[in-house]
Amino acid sequence: MKTSNLLLATQRENPSDAETISHKLMLKAGLIRQVASGIYNWLPLGVKVLRKVENIVRREMEKSGAQEILMPMVQPGELWKESGRWQQYGKELLIFEDRHDREFCLGPTHEEIITDLCRNEIRSHKQLPVIFYQIQTKFRDEIRPRFGVMRSREFIMKDAYSFDLSEQQMDDSYQSMRDAYVRIFNSLGLDYRIVKADSGAIGGADSEEFHVLADSGEDLLAFSDKSDYAINAELLIESKSDQDPRSLEGQDSPDGKGKLKLKRGIEVGHIFKLGRKYSESMKLTVQSENGNIYPEMGCYGIGISRIVAAAIEQNHDDKGIIWSKEISPYTTALVEINPKGEKNLKNLCNQIYTSLKEQGHEVLWDDRDQSAGVKFSDMELIGIPQMIIIGEKSFRENKVEFKMRGEDKIVSLIPDEVLNKIQ
Amino acid sequence: MKTSNLLLATQRENPSDAETISHKLMLKAGLIRQVASGIYNWLPLGVKVLRKVENIVRREMEKSGAQEILMPMVQPGELWKESGRWQQYGKELLIFEDRHDREFCLGPTHEEIITDLCRNEIRSHKQLPVIFYQIQTKFRDEIRPRFGVMRSREFIMKDAYSFDLSEQQMDDSYQSMRDAYVRIFNSLGLDYRIVKADSGAIGGADSEEFHVLADSGEDLLAFSDKSDYAINAELLIESKSDQDPRSLEGQDSPDGKGKLKLKRGIEVGHIFKLGRKYSESMKLTVQSENGNIYPEMGCYGIGISRIVAAAIEQNHDDKGIIWSKEISPYTTALVEINPKGEKNLKNLCNQIYTSLKEQGHEVLWDDRDQSAGVKFSDMELIGIPQMIIIGEKSFRENKVEFKMRGEDKIVSLIPDEVLNKIQ
Repeated sequence: MKTSNLLLATQRENPSDAETISHKLMLKAGLIRQVASGIYNWLPLGVKVLRKVENIVRREMEKSGAQEILMPMVQPGELWKESGRWQQYGKELLIFEDRHDREFCLGPTHEEIITDLCRNEIRSHKQLPVIFYQIQTKFRDEIRPRFGVMRSREFIMKDAYSFDLSEQQMDDSYQSMRDAYVRIFNSLGLDYRIVKADSGAIGGADSEEFHVLADSGEDLLAFSDKSDYAINAELLIESKSDQDPRSLEGQDSPDGKGKLKLKRGIEVGHIFKLGRKYSESMKLTVQSENGNIYPEMGCYGIGISRIVAAAIEQNHDDKGIIWSKEISPYTTALVEINPKGEKNLKNLCNQIYTSLKEQGHEVLWDDRDQSAGVKFSDMELIGIPQMIIIGEKSFRENKVEFKMRGEDKIVSLIPDEVLNKIQ
Repeated sequence: MKTSNLLLATQRENPSDAETISHKLMLKAGLIRQVASGIYNWLPLGVKVLRKVENIVRREMEKSGAQEILMPMVQPGELWKESGRWQQYGKELLIFEDRHDREFCLGPTHEEIITDLCRNEIRSHKQLPVIFYQIQTKFRDEIRPRFGVMRSREFIMKDAYSFDLSEQQMDDSYQSMRDAYVRIFNSLGLDYRIVKADSGAIGGADSEEFHVLADSGEDLLAFSDKSDYAINAELLIESKSDQDPRSLEGQDSPDGKGKLKLKRGIEVGHIFKLGRKYSESMKLTVQSENGNIYPEMGCYGIGISRIVAAAIEQNHDDKGIIWSKEISPYTTALVEINPKGEKNLKNLCNQIYTSLKEQGHEVLWDDRDQSAGVKFSDMELIGIPQMIIIGEKSFRENKVEFKMRGEDKIVSLIPDEVLNKIQ
């Protein structure tokens, strides 16, 4: 893609209404624009990141054997009344009537719909275990939406639901989703921790959260420097009836392995054993050899749009975003500095652009009639991990320059070498 | 995928509430389930088709240089008041208030949002021409939703919007979208016609519809048997002040090439020159050399979910759906008929399954403990275009059978041959 054909909506000024780094940078880099409180347009660069996150999530869900479905955003009130949540959910459930005065809500989650689907479609115990997932737009009428897409009203989730015949089988489904989540967050190239979401100390966790580590995170996490042990610091303090969570730093890890470290985290995933809450309240039963039974359910969420913001909270500097290669809108920026419009220089740009595209790289060629300074600032702001610079001086020496985002070092190479350098 | 791991929600009975073939078959084949009037769950087989349509549309939109964005489903009332459509649109616009009593609607279309986006982001004439598109869930509160996803309330659209400096430039954008649509409908493997949507006889059409031909189509189309000429028969009759559209059959085509034929069509795409309607009413201007001007706009829709139904209306028989290879949920059904559970037979199935998957084919292996009759019926109902049958008798002769959906002929082949046969 050439920048001359792209809506590169970068801004120099700091947006006054943005409190967090990711919100600021998503506005400045032109990933999103607010339409109304907590409701956003995703601009071309933003959508590209969103789609990459989506694709990684979909790939790993498929690998786990979960089946993709698509449930509606507009949900009938009756189902929510059946589960009891029509009253319980509170004002975050946006309720309205259609033209025939029938009650509906905008789905903030889909337990009711999936339970209804399964009570109609799943009859025999032979159909279990089963896991369904969807990637879909949700709405939660937050009283005070903030932090951009981090806590917006309209957002994109991957939600999955498992149905099992026994608690033991549910443990397997839970583990398979947990494994998929590990693969997803590894693929995203993010530093994360899996955090116990309840204080139950040992044995099968009933609920775990996936947190992306970032100084701005809402939750303080305590985790071992030697093992996978990680927990919300508040929960650990509770169970230790201590006072200040910060006092945990350096203490022995409760699992006996290593010392505790403290860092803040942003919750981007949640895996949860629901048990029979919905199968019982909505009367989902399957025939088994021991008569009709209520399946054990689990639910598994990933905030697709939230991950984009969390990745930025974790990876940025004073120049802008630093994307991992896996979710960057483009893997390579090709900066043409060609104020006199030299034909041969443009030809070289075109050659490198074409070769890289043929090798399967996603290249953003900054061909605008702008100063070198503006181009560098923009490419660094939008966070492309690799940059090739073709300027007049180096061109005359048959050289191009290469720079990694987040590093200061600029390497001078002959054009052929740079093709091998790009990953 | 093995059927034992898939929600294969096929039904034998004809659903009583479905009026059209596609609605019936989508229910019987287990592609969709109704949640509320005009609101559906997409089951695994349905989602697979939906994603394939989406991917073809996205690929060709990208090729055309259109930029993907994502606008919200929940839209603020103010923007619709600005354009004047808050009152005009009628009851199909579902309106509600959020918890702070602010007015919103569920977007049935996005002209207001995109115009607002562009008046904030597009400042200079150098940024034009530009085309934005999205693939997104929409809602239209139909008074009487019917025909399944053909006329549902919640549906998935690809909508695109072009912005140009002059009518001539808009003609180019329109043509580029028209070309992309031609590539899309060719790729979908559907028989379609591009139909003038207004009676303006000669010269640049301002609006054209893409119709999938099907006997059950709502519109009667008249088209030349020798040229691309095609028009809604009602429009042609109007301009000829004739009585019965059916009288057109066999008449000379108005473009002087060939004779008219009549067939029914289902509208699945619409390309439309909006002109300055929204840029003027919502005050979107760009600076040009001749001062500030209102851009010329075009809008371009494709009914993603509707295409799934239209494809079935066009391609089915009394046994069920007949998918084109391009959008079939799986390209190949592998039917294992193995009532005694012979290990070697299963091994051969596994070999063929694995080899085909390695070659990049999408195979559905029917490994269920069901009769041959049930398996054939299901695979034909869900419309997989190619079928490999591995039964006891042919297996003993070191043969497998191959059958194309929609054809009666069954070919007997040695296992290696069938691998080359699959496309």
